Amino acid sequence: MKFGIVTLFPEMFGAITEHGVTGRAIKNQIVQMQYVNPREFAGDVHRTVDSRPYGGGPGMLMLANPLLQAIDAAKAGLKCSDAPRVVYVSPQGKPFDQAAAQEFSQRQAIVFVCGRYEGIDERVIDIAVDEEWSLGDFVVSGGELPVMAMIDATVRLIPGVLGHKDSAAEDSFFQGLLDCPHYTRPEHFAGRDVPEVLLSGNHALIKRWRLKQALGRTWQRRPDLLERRELSKDERKMLEEFIQELA
Amino acid sequence: MKFGIVTLFPEMFGAITEHGVTGRAIKNQIVQMQYVNPREFAGDVHRTVDSRPYGGGPGMLMLANPLLQAIDAAKAGLKCSDAPRVVYVSPQGKPFDQAAAQEFSQRQAIVFVCGRYEGIDERVIDIAVDEEWSLGDFVVSGGELPVMAMIDATVRLIPGVLGHKDSAAEDSFFQGLLDCPHYTRPEHFAGRDVPEVLLSGNHALIKRWRLKQALGRTWQRRPDLLERRELSKDERKMLEEFIQELA
Ligand SMILES: CCCCCCCCNCc1ccc(CNC(=O)c2csc3nc[nH]c(=O)c23)cc1
Ligand SMILES: CCCCCCCCNCc1ccc(CNC(=O)c2csc3nc[nH]c(=O)c23)cc1
Repeated sequence: MKFGIVTLFPEMFGAITEHGVTGRAIKNQIVQMQYVNPREFAGDVHRTVDSRPYGGGPGMLMLANPLLQAIDAAKAGLKCSDAPRVVYVSPQGKPFDQAAAQEFSQRQAIVFVCGRYEGIDERVIDIAVDEEWSLGDFVVSGGELPVMAMIDATVRLIPGVLGHKDSAAEDSFFQGLLDCPHYTRPEHFAGRDVPEVLLSGNHALIKRWRLKQALGRTWQRRPDLLERRELSKDERKMLEEFIQELA
Repeated sequence: MKFGIVTLFPEMFGAITEHGVTGRAIKNQIVQMQYVNPREFAGDVHRTVDSRPYGGGPGMLMLANPLLQAIDAAKAGLKCSDAPRVVYVSPQGKPFDQAAAQEFSQRQAIVFVCGRYEGIDERVIDIAVDEEWSLGDFVVSGGELPVMAMIDATVRLIPGVLGHKDSAAEDSFFQGLLDCPHYTRPEHFAGRDVPEVLLSGNHALIKRWRLKQALGRTWQRRPDLLERRELSKDERKMLEEFIQELA
């Protein structure tokens, strides 16, 4: 999978390319990253990439021309048979979630456009952007951290990137529930014991306990997720047990 | 403001400390970051920080003991009069948003705990974690990128960190609406003109156009945000105009 990244701060991406899953996927030639800096396409001696908004108001905007040229260069650089889709990340985008990560992971290539300042000239979006995605309802300084999070979430889902065991773990969450509590050695720690069922060796019982905890926690913390998910009869029963045992 | 960060990958944080808003806030001594690596507290020659989950299943968990010692060291290192709150970031947490960033920005200090692998021993949460926050409903490889995004969003809101002009811009979004389109020079670009109103010099008209666009876009893209926000009579009228003009 190829990522073209249009950014004024390519060095920031070391955070994902020099560590962990994305770094390994790059080393193993499963993932390729290419950066294009709009500053390369600034037309003046000061290499200006920003300017004040028409109509006044605070802050600066990214100029259309250097940005558009950078997007074109990023598309061309990826050398794909089909033109890659151009994703602009901004607070105005569709909220990114695991379903989006799944879908991204099935693409051949993506060009990500990172904004800075108060955003970019709207005409760039009209002309060159295919999709707009947001990381969430908060404001960060630019698109770089959001793009890194989206790439990390995406790369983990490319077949062969995580080890077999970890990908199995991956599968198990995508049921729209929060994860259950987990415990590791030692059995006794700071006066607290591992729940007995986890030491029982009874795998059916362990599976049921975990699902019940996941249902119970999702009900406690994220009832919005439960509303979006059908519960089976057995799951409803487990959740009722969980609620009863609280009292 | 002081951030204590418990992480196996402190180098990743260069992405925010060597650039932009957080980097500047550190240089200006408005923000301080301290890292504690749980590996420093691993008890064996292999410096083991992870182990298999009780009850079986894929993946590894972070061991309680090195993590708990690292959290204690991070709390002690910040030298605060009141003990700093310990924030564990995980997919099970409360979804982070701009209101959370606002609230974080008013604190003296925060200790962030970054998980890796499939998560951490639940007893660490019971013993040492005060709050659990999530960046959103997607899975990334660890807490580091989420913590960087939360710190960036928080630091931008500390008084004196953004220039006066940028903070004014900041204020103007927190009305629970998406931003309006923005344009900068040139007036004509690739056959597309800047909307005339923005060149009119009529500031009342410009303000009204921007609010109408913000309302219209929020209605189109994020109706969930409109449901959470009261519209004034005038705003309702603007939104109706926007909708009518689409047809
Ligand atoms: C209820 C949410 C409404 C938020 C409206 C915020 C409008 C902010 N406009 C100015 C601005 C634009 C872009 C940025 C830089 N942010 C990103 O490029 C960004 C890219 S993806 C993303 N996801 C969440 N939050 C983000 O800030 C981002 C910062 C300030
Ligand atoms: C509907 C969402 C439910 C998601 C349930 C996912 C359960 C995943 N459990 C294993 C796992 C734990 C922790 C990680 C590392 N992630 C973070 O530390 C993290 C820290 S904050 C955060 N926000 C969103 N997504 C995230 O992955 C995170 C990766 C896999």
